[in-house]
Amino acid sequence: MEKLYTFDRSYEAFEKAQKFIPGGIFGSKTPYFVTYGSYPVYVTKGKGSHVWDVDGNEYIDFMCSYGANIIGMCNDEVDAAVAEQLKKGNTFTPPSEIVNVLAERMVKLVDGMDWIVFGKNGADITTFATTVARLQTGRTVILKAEGAYHGAHFWSVHSTTGIPAEYKAHVAEFRYNDAEDLRRVAAENSGKIAAIILCPYKHDHLHDQEFPTEEFKRAVEEVRLQEKAFYIQDDIRCGFRLHPNGSHCYFGVKPDLTCMGKAMSNGYAISALLGKRELMDAARAAYFSGTFFYEAIPMAASLATLDILERDRVVDYVLEIGTMLENGLCEQAKEFGIEISYTGHPSMPFFRFKGDADFSTARYFCGEAAKRGVYFHPHHNMFVCAAHTKEDIEKTLEVTGRCFALVAQSRG
Amino acid sequence: MEKLYTFDRSYEAFEKAQKFIPGGIFGSKTPYFVTYGSYPVYVTKGKGSHVWDVDGNEYIDFMCSYGANIIGMCNDEVDAAVAEQLKKGNTFTPPSEIVNVLAERMVKLVDGMDWIVFGKNGADITTFATTVARLQTGRTVILKAEGAYHGAHFWSVHSTTGIPAEYKAHVAEFRYNDAEDLRRVAAENSGKIAAIILCPYKHDHLHDQEFPTEEFKRAVEEVRLQEKAFYIQDDIRCGFRLHPNGSHCYFGVKPDLTCMGKAMSNGYAISALLGKRELMDAARAAYFSGTFFYEAIPMAASLATLDILERDRVVDYVLEIGTMLENGLCEQAKEFGIEISYTGHPSMPFFRFKGDADFSTARYFCGEAAKRGVYFHPHHNMFVCAAHTKEDIEKTLEVTGRCFALVAQSRG
Repeated sequence: MEKLYTFDRSYEAFEKAQKFIPGGIFGSKTPYFVTYGSYPVYVTKGKGSHVWDVDGNEYIDFMCSYGANIIGMCNDEVDAAVAEQLKKGNTFTPPSEIVNVLAERMVKLVDGMDWIVFGKNGADITTFATTVARLQTGRTVILKAEGAYHGAHFWSVHSTTGIPAEYKAHVAEFRYNDAEDLRRVAAENSGKIAAIILCPYKHDHLHDQEFPTEEFKRAVEEVRLQEKAFYIQDDIRCGFRLHPNGSHCYFGVKPDLTCMGKAMSNGYAISALLGKRELMDAARAAYFSGTFFYEAIPMAASLATLDILERDRVVDYVLEIGTMLENGLCEQAKEFGIEISYTGHPSMPFFRFKGDADFSTARYFCGEAAKRGVYFHPHHNMFVCAAHTKEDIEKTLEVTGRCFALVAQSRG
Repeated sequence: MEKLYTFDRSYEAFEKAQKFIPGGIFGSKTPYFVTYGSYPVYVTKGKGSHVWDVDGNEYIDFMCSYGANIIGMCNDEVDAAVAEQLKKGNTFTPPSEIVNVLAERMVKLVDGMDWIVFGKNGADITTFATTVARLQTGRTVILKAEGAYHGAHFWSVHSTTGIPAEYKAHVAEFRYNDAEDLRRVAAENSGKIAAIILCPYKHDHLHDQEFPTEEFKRAVEEVRLQEKAFYIQDDIRCGFRLHPNGSHCYFGVKPDLTCMGKAMSNGYAISALLGKRELMDAARAAYFSGTFFYEAIPMAASLATLDILERDRVVDYVLEIGTMLENGLCEQAKEFGIEISYTGHPSMPFFRFKGDADFSTARYFCGEAAKRGVYFHPHHNMFVCAAHTKEDIEKTLEVTGRCFALVAQSRG
């Protein structure tokens, strides 16, 4: 008899939390965003690729905090760097000298970039990138792909709730990987375009992932040159997963500004905008400030993370381990005669069941996986990290084998 | 012969940093924002109220990281809480249960508030407050005081550089402490007002601080009722300095939403919006998300900080120690026949020299203080913390005595 996880303490705590937090959990960490009732709601600790929930259940985590935990949770080396910085302090009136160490390291590491500034959220940085591009060009329009997520600030967020329409002005959208549509939107806004912002590839929520086509990349470059606009790469989610020097190297493109975050610090709040020399004066003139932008502990965590990324060739490893997961899942689906779509870079794959437009099969499959100790996401791309072992993948595939069987069974 | 600090290593590092950081330092931590050449640029460590710079000089710090370090740097209890959470992890895919502990604690602590959400920057929170108020009212206009700082987001920041004018729409400004002007601006926007946002008192950069007059407070309440608008208190800078339950208790006002940050975590990146029950559904419906919003370490730091704030009656202590500084400085100025203006709550005072419109005397005075181990700010309000001792103040007054003498001397 299979023993399934129960989540009593999680949902008790979630019910109680609704009294003092709107919805119990704000943002995308609510159990409603996965499969309500079949997922843990709160964790107590994490180690490597594993997390433990408040009911004492253990999971292999394939979300890695939405990509942030690239090395794995509670990594000894990152933690040692944090503990060392903790002795010196975290936030000071003048900056800690560590800012320069990290700045120099990042500028050398990220291909083609000459300068850097640090923020806390991804949105701090994508927004600052637009300001720098607008200041430098004296133009206002930002071209972005329909459905692409560039953070929660007004200009970019999908939500319109409580946001005056004017706050979304000067943003023009084109269809991703549609060179003709990009050219049309660029022509409509000709002479007014400050920048094109793009993720290294399309990883929109609920959609199959798409790499940029050669034709689309050429169109981006064409628009950039014709309009003398800047090309902002939003590498927050992909950064240091696809290529050690930034995802533009993976795709052979040359952004003018690139936004980093998540994986650069293994889960500590820091983000960064890097840019080319010609934009340095604009970056100096644009206003950018936050109480915690110079926190030293996330910088120490980032330096340790960058050491490990480089030394352990983490980009190669997450490709390898992600490919093992992909092959395993795709083979299992085939064995059960279940059609799935598995897309994107193997280190951050998205998979869905074909014909499952409302993602109900995905929610069922992933809920059953969670009850057996595998934390997948039913409708967001997932992530692997350097702490995922081959044993993790084997154990995961044992669970998913069972879950595919359940899906096959439910389909009769 | 008096031995003055030198800053060779600081400025060497600052020169070098200009190669890879726009302006060498981004935001307000540049030495140009204090007195270029007379201030340290980078620190190596901090302890309590003292910091050490890269040249080995020690300072008594009266900026406390612009208010964040309310308990003092490297506090043993806060650090122990951080170290304990570090063993469990910082960022996870589902939230750590610590979010509920901190949420419940804060909701009980901050007077009149029923719910809370957490962000990273102060601006995350002031901005979210406007969205919640707009969503609830279906109206768009935010009334704010001229010159008040509510964070670096487009709608509120003073800068217009690189920011399309539309992004500042729906914000109407009135003169602080001018009831008539507030009424006039409210009348002009009647029927369209979602919220009035105010700091607990006026602490604008470069200006004498002002407490709200009784007449002004009545006018705010009047507009709030007449317009059925919400009153947002931006307590990011003052919070837990004036009153243990939020600065509205100090001034006897009743906000509908209140923004906390800085002192709530003693220098770890966390901020929070608290609100009344009637706004809870709007807060749930409004979009609010960030990769690091659930970081557990800043929450652990915040819980430890709140313990100490309560146990050690820090609000009383910073008033006492701040008053000692105020009395000392005002007496010294008088002795030297120098007219100064010393304003605001003693825990976060602003002082300037009368007739010193360009702040050149202030820069000279504060630069000379920095060279003698006292870190003041020439044109921003300063801060004291629980780690400032009477010996710190005595030592500070020895230095400032010398600095007043120098000012008197320079004036002939």
